Amino acid sequence: MKTLVLVSHPEYDNSMTEAFLKQSQSNIDSVDWVVLDQIQNQFTFDKDAEQKRLKQYDRILFQFPMYWYSAPALMKKYQDDVFTRNFIYADEQGWLNGKEFGIVMTLGDPLKDYQVGGSEGFSISELLKPYQAIAKKAHMEFLKPFVIEQFAYMTDAQKEKLLVDYCNYLTNDNFDSFASKQAWYVEQLSALKSTLSEDKQLQMEVLIDYIQGNIDQLDELKWEIELIKKEDDE
Amino acid sequence: MKTLVLVSHPEYDNSMTEAFLKQSQSNIDSVDWVVLDQIQNQFTFDKDAEQKRLKQYDRILFQFPMYWYSAPALMKKYQDDVFTRNFIYADEQGWLNGKEFGIVMTLGDPLKDYQVGGSEGFSISELLKPYQAIAKKAHMEFLKPFVIEQFAYMTDAQKEKLLVDYCNYLTNDNFDSFASKQAWYVEQLSALKSTLSEDKQLQMEVLIDYIQGNIDQLDELKWEIELIKKEDDE
Repeated sequence: MKTLVLVSHPEYDNSMTEAFLKQSQSNIDSVDWVVLDQIQNQFTFDKDAEQKRLKQYDRILFQFPMYWYSAPALMKKYQDDVFTRNFIYADEQGWLNGKEFGIVMTLGDPLKDYQVGGSEGFSISELLKPYQAIAKKAHMEFLKPFVIEQFAYMTDAQKEKLLVDYCNYLTNDNFDSFASKQAWYVEQLSALKSTLSEDKQLQMEVLIDYIQGNIDQLDELKWEIELIKKEDDE
Repeated sequence: MKTLVLVSHPEYDNSMTEAFLKQSQSNIDSVDWVVLDQIQNQFTFDKDAEQKRLKQYDRILFQFPMYWYSAPALMKKYQDDVFTRNFIYADEQGWLNGKEFGIVMTLGDPLKDYQVGGSEGFSISELLKPYQAIAKKAHMEFLKPFVIEQFAYMTDAQKEKLLVDYCNYLTNDNFDSFASKQAWYVEQLSALKSTLSEDKQLQMEVLIDYIQGNIDQLDELKWEIELIKKEDDE
């Protein structure tokens, strides 16, 4: 699976969050990172080149800080310039048909404010409807958004978790399933193992075995529960 | 009441709809018409000048063709440039506090497609949440949107009705109430009367009397209904 991260951030060079996210995915081959602010020319995009780019990916992510409950204007300009009628829904189908469309959004305010009765008053699901509508029009699968709240206040441990979750969102086919996430961790750690010195490889082996053991145990529990259910039914 | 119409349309000079709407309100003193495409400079707005402009109006309208379920990118740029945190909600209040915020939106597709099960799948109320959220943040009253569907296919009679409804939306304090709309019609016709030749003035007088008679009759009916309800309660 190939993933494209399209970033829009008017203060890109000064954004600690973007620098962190860029670093997080920098060694993943299947992910490409494109900053709209760097490829625009007088606030305009090369329609043909961009359409050609988008066609190459399976998962397309819009990544931006929320500005007035939406993406920054430049990201909207990308949509207006590149998403032509023919490209999105020619012959009832279009070129992005079957691909995945996700939103990676950073919030300056806490996520809990985004709900009825909260100080923002509207949920992220409500505010992202225009993007969901594009996914529908283009016959794309709209992914559960990846929301990063208040990066500036995160502890190191929170940032480490963010790094792993973000890479999972970018590269895991089935990023929102617990079983799939576990398998993905094992895969990541196994790949990492080969780059380590011999004694660290051994440590890593133990860690992987431990996670794998966990997975097996959970599978067994699940199987036993199914068995009990079945007996109850009989 | 002073109204500002902020128009964003990438094809403004070629838009028949915009030309029609501009003509519709051209002789109303209390309405100002500003085209963002004409006042932008390299896709950027003069923040101070625009904030000063916005402060002068009671009703602020964003007028645009729907592009990907939202305003064109330039209108978003206006928001990003002009709506600074201090301007919108300094000291929990901001400078637009108490003003009205409305959306005049033109659709190329029929309005009936914008609903669950329709080909667009989402309602206008859902898609406009980001604007409603801005109104909430700025302590503005969010008006019922004025949606113009498929102007190109309108008959002359439909266009005449649109003209009247549009002017009502721009200038009537209480544009969505039937009683207020009627009073507004009488006011408009009375103003028009003075500009007519003597014999036409007489015709207009008859028309105004007729509408006024209608209003009186409706008021009487309403009064009688109230009376019956009251007797029932006793």
